[in-house]
Amino acid sequence: MSQVLDDKLKNLSPEELNLWKLRHTAEHVLTEAMINLYGEGKVIMAMGPATEDGFYFDFDSPEDFKISEADFKKIEKEMWKIINTNLPLTREEITVSDAKKLFKGNPYKQEWLKEIESRGESVSIYKTGDQFVDLCSGPHADSTGAIKAFKLLSVAGAYWHGDEKNKMLTRIYGTAFASKQELDEYLHNLEEAKKRDHRKIGQDQDLFFIDDMVGKGLIMWLPKGQIIKQQVEDLAKDMEEQSGYLRVSTPHIAKEELFLTSGHLPYYKDSMYPPMEMDDGVYYLKAMNCPHHHRIFLHKPRSYKELPLRLAEYGTCYRNELSGTLAGLLRVRGMDMNDAHIYCRKNQIKDEFKAVIKLTQNYFKIFGLKDYWFRLSKWDPSHTDKYINEPENWAYSESIIREVLEEMKVNFVEAEDEAAFYGPKVDVQFKSIIGREETMSTIQLDFVAKSRFGLSYTDANGAANDQVFVIHRAPLSVHERFMAFMIEHYAGAFPVWLSPIQAVVIPISQDQGDYANNLNQSLRDQGIRSELWSDDSMQKRIRTAEKQKIPYMLIVGQKEADTNTVSVRGRGEKDLGVMPQDQFLSRIAADIKDKTIS
Amino acid sequence: MSQVLDDKLKNLSPEELNLWKLRHTAEHVLTEAMINLYGEGKVIMAMGPATEDGFYFDFDSPEDFKISEADFKKIEKEMWKIINTNLPLTREEITVSDAKKLFKGNPYKQEWLKEIESRGESVSIYKTGDQFVDLCSGPHADSTGAIKAFKLLSVAGAYWHGDEKNKMLTRIYGTAFASKQELDEYLHNLEEAKKRDHRKIGQDQDLFFIDDMVGKGLIMWLPKGQIIKQQVEDLAKDMEEQSGYLRVSTPHIAKEELFLTSGHLPYYKDSMYPPMEMDDGVYYLKAMNCPHHHRIFLHKPRSYKELPLRLAEYGTCYRNELSGTLAGLLRVRGMDMNDAHIYCRKNQIKDEFKAVIKLTQNYFKIFGLKDYWFRLSKWDPSHTDKYINEPENWAYSESIIREVLEEMKVNFVEAEDEAAFYGPKVDVQFKSIIGREETMSTIQLDFVAKSRFGLSYTDANGAANDQVFVIHRAPLSVHERFMAFMIEHYAGAFPVWLSPIQAVVIPISQDQGDYANNLNQSLRDQGIRSELWSDDSMQKRIRTAEKQKIPYMLIVGQKEADTNTVSVRGRGEKDLGVMPQDQFLSRIAADIKDKTIS
Repeated sequence: MSQVLDDKLKNLSPEELNLWKLRHTAEHVLTEAMINLYGEGKVIMAMGPATEDGFYFDFDSPEDFKISEADFKKIEKEMWKIINTNLPLTREEITVSDAKKLFKGNPYKQEWLKEIESRGESVSIYKTGDQFVDLCSGPHADSTGAIKAFKLLSVAGAYWHGDEKNKMLTRIYGTAFASKQELDEYLHNLEEAKKRDHRKIGQDQDLFFIDDMVGKGLIMWLPKGQIIKQQVEDLAKDMEEQSGYLRVSTPHIAKEELFLTSGHLPYYKDSMYPPMEMDDGVYYLKAMNCPHHHRIFLHKPRSYKELPLRLAEYGTCYRNELSGTLAGLLRVRGMDMNDAHIYCRKNQIKDEFKAVIKLTQNYFKIFGLKDYWFRLSKWDPSHTDKYINEPENWAYSESIIREVLEEMKVNFVEAEDEAAFYGPKVDVQFKSIIGREETMSTIQLDFVAKSRFGLSYTDANGAANDQVFVIHRAPLSVHERFMAFMIEHYAGAFPVWLSPIQAVVIPISQDQGDYANNLNQSLRDQGIRSELWSDDSMQKRIRTAEKQKIPYMLIVGQKEADTNTVSVRGRGEKDLGVMPQDQFLSRIAADIKDKTIS
Repeated sequence: MSQVLDDKLKNLSPEELNLWKLRHTAEHVLTEAMINLYGEGKVIMAMGPATEDGFYFDFDSPEDFKISEADFKKIEKEMWKIINTNLPLTREEITVSDAKKLFKGNPYKQEWLKEIESRGESVSIYKTGDQFVDLCSGPHADSTGAIKAFKLLSVAGAYWHGDEKNKMLTRIYGTAFASKQELDEYLHNLEEAKKRDHRKIGQDQDLFFIDDMVGKGLIMWLPKGQIIKQQVEDLAKDMEEQSGYLRVSTPHIAKEELFLTSGHLPYYKDSMYPPMEMDDGVYYLKAMNCPHHHRIFLHKPRSYKELPLRLAEYGTCYRNELSGTLAGLLRVRGMDMNDAHIYCRKNQIKDEFKAVIKLTQNYFKIFGLKDYWFRLSKWDPSHTDKYINEPENWAYSESIIREVLEEMKVNFVEAEDEAAFYGPKVDVQFKSIIGREETMSTIQLDFVAKSRFGLSYTDANGAANDQVFVIHRAPLSVHERFMAFMIEHYAGAFPVWLSPIQAVVIPISQDQGDYANNLNQSLRDQGIRSELWSDDSMQKRIRTAEKQKIPYMLIVGQKEADTNTVSVRGRGEKDLGVMPQDQFLSRIAADIKDKTIS
């Protein structure tokens, strides 16, 4: 247990703090139980904190002593004994020299004590009842009975102080809650998260990979992943064309002058890829599309008749995220996004915000995302350094955005002092299928761009007007991130319209080869992504199709071949019966057209 | 006239050399004519060579003497006099000191002579009859009568030696031919090239622009240009899906390890953008897509059943072309191309080459390109340093590619010693509408990639086979270049399926506002890119539509509104008559579906 109280603790709510105390106590109980079972000679205490998700305990032991998950049942039983006795936890302050005596023979505790001594801090210990004592700064639950539910999760190796030059210790991970219901829910979500992990599904279904030789955080989309990506792109293009967006296409690089004008340089420089010096100036990979779009706005004089002007692009941006923070598709360095910038007059902000929120709702409906809400982030007028100083625009825009959210009767919360520098924003928050709260996307109003870039238009009277407001929006987030959400959301069982393979034809024997081939071809002629699988045993083909979560398996035997029918099996072992070819064709065509979520 | 004979002359065919002599002679005739007309005091000869397209003459003159295109008629008349007299041109060698006396008072000739003297070369002069003499190394036509047709084209300023620190001289451009027919054809093509210039049409139709703040050679596609680009992309995606290509998507950057493996580094380094040093290595913008695709091939073990594997991508590459060579869309630094790499076994090369050529033919047919042929570039076995040393593969592949071209009965020529380092290639040559020969694209066989990247597959017997051949192909060239060709080819009058605006509804007066609006909406509901233009005079609207080369103008007056009809006007002032709405809808729908070239 760490002697240094994490600063984080100070920011926890009372409920969160109680949970933290309870988990820290569970860790002491684990340590005590292990010593009871195996003795201090085998379990040499090193450290053990509470964490956001539970707790862990690191210990050293003789080489011939090994703990595995098979031992968890026995350890948990011993822990329950200690919990059920409901022993009180009591704190005592003692001198360093007394502490050194108390933990004599434990090199890890001695090292902690030396450090505490060098900082001139006092030493605290926690006792569980009268039997167990550990060096610990706390805090803890009042008694072990506070732990209503816990579970040991895994065992792993961990270097002392996380440094690979030090000795490898054993670490046991666990979690604890104030009720069994909460624990069950957590364990369920953990199971789901494992099953739905986009990296695992991405590999199982051959959707994408990350290649060391290409680089970190850069996604290589394989043919099947590219089909899904393309379907989402086509959807966005169609829906935004209907909503009056105009598509453009801009380079992935630009000269530093552009990013100096936008203000991304020097402020945002560390998050950009390094500069490239060319014969005509210094170039950067773009980390956002807005400066390029502003230049498109500026390339000719604009009339009030052209506003609102909505420029959209699937633009790939590159950001220098720290390599340690990169994670599959969720956090990448090369990000594709269906970005758009809406240039409008002040009195058009309201309608444009409303339209963007409506569009977001439509997208979410198509993808079956239901558990979401909005968060309006506002400025703080007293933080003049943090926000552009246009009080009238702040007051006006915050109030009309609130009106929009109210008129649309959507769930929303407001957050003070959370706006962007350049204007208020609306974040779209959603709760993932495994209970995680995520920000899907943001809609941001920008009143800085107009002066930085000199955006203006000619009004109905022929006069120049420099009040051009910009809305930044990307309802489908960064493409890679959205794909990670979708893989997780559907657990890889994509709706038919998104499925890389929509149907697979499986003839029972070679006798149905011609029939199967014709069936497959007629599906393909209708634009269905169908494949004919003839090799391997039927069992193996069905297993593979299930693993790849292909929506429809069309099993054809002699009976089907003779009657021009198919025996349809839905993924997840759903027997959909035998039906005429035409009936199946209508069914799958309707799935695709309606974007049915199965 | 330059004293240094251009090395180029040595490489000209007899016909080309004759034309060059004739043009050089025309330049002497021009000089003589001007001195006859204005006197040596006003026309101080500086220099004047023949060029690929004609000739030019640079001269100095007193400040108050100006030549403009208005004077060309008079000068041409004087030139015809000299030509019609059919004066012989004779060469003499003289000493430098005699030459200095001969050209006394002309500082430009004195400078040439000093230079010749310093190099220790001899001095030659050319005389036209007995009247005119110039310092010149020739060669020339035997007499002025060889010039059967010529024309002065333009007048411009030009710095002496092309150096802006020197004096600005006057330059007259002209051209000359051995027949009037050839001249007329040239002038016609020049006129056409001006009208069809993709930069001018791009600006008139608001298709794209190049922005100094973004950078040289980087195209900003405006909404209308993006529509055309997207149509071409969608066509390529559709046609290649039909042909069994699988689409992938890869990052625009990669680590240097990848380009060292491919061999692009260090060999091709100067043509790539400069490196970017990151926390995990050095990155480069990709200048080609093949290394990324090879990594996709390698990401899992491949079976013979997967070959041929055809990976396709609209990948944007970046190449550090010299800024001086950049020209509109024709030569860019950021290039989008529908690239694909076909991985196949040796016995599949023939069929794959055939399929690519067939695909190319299909593309060309759709775009109405007829005047094209193929060029098979082969190795030279004696140049062992220039080509990979796999004689058996060279012999085999050159012979089967020839077989393909013969079996397909296409026009083709063969070129020795013109292959790529890694294998033979077939270039697709075409003659542009203004008579220029261009290489549209190449199909290249590669037997180096397999060993560089260690490409292999498992054959039917379960054994590893490292004979994976790669075909590089991009039938639609670099996107930007292809768009330049298309703009020029159609002179901006794109087929309906490519037109950014396919129809424009023009009500005669406000009384037809509702009818026009409904018509426009019903066109849009059918997916037609239609616009309603209500402002400005009818004349102005029609003029604008003609200028933008919109395929259909739908004029609606009260008669049309009363009878549910439209008065259809095709671009180029074609009156297509009054027809029921439905009939027009069928017509335009057929144009789009059939990709009619109007």
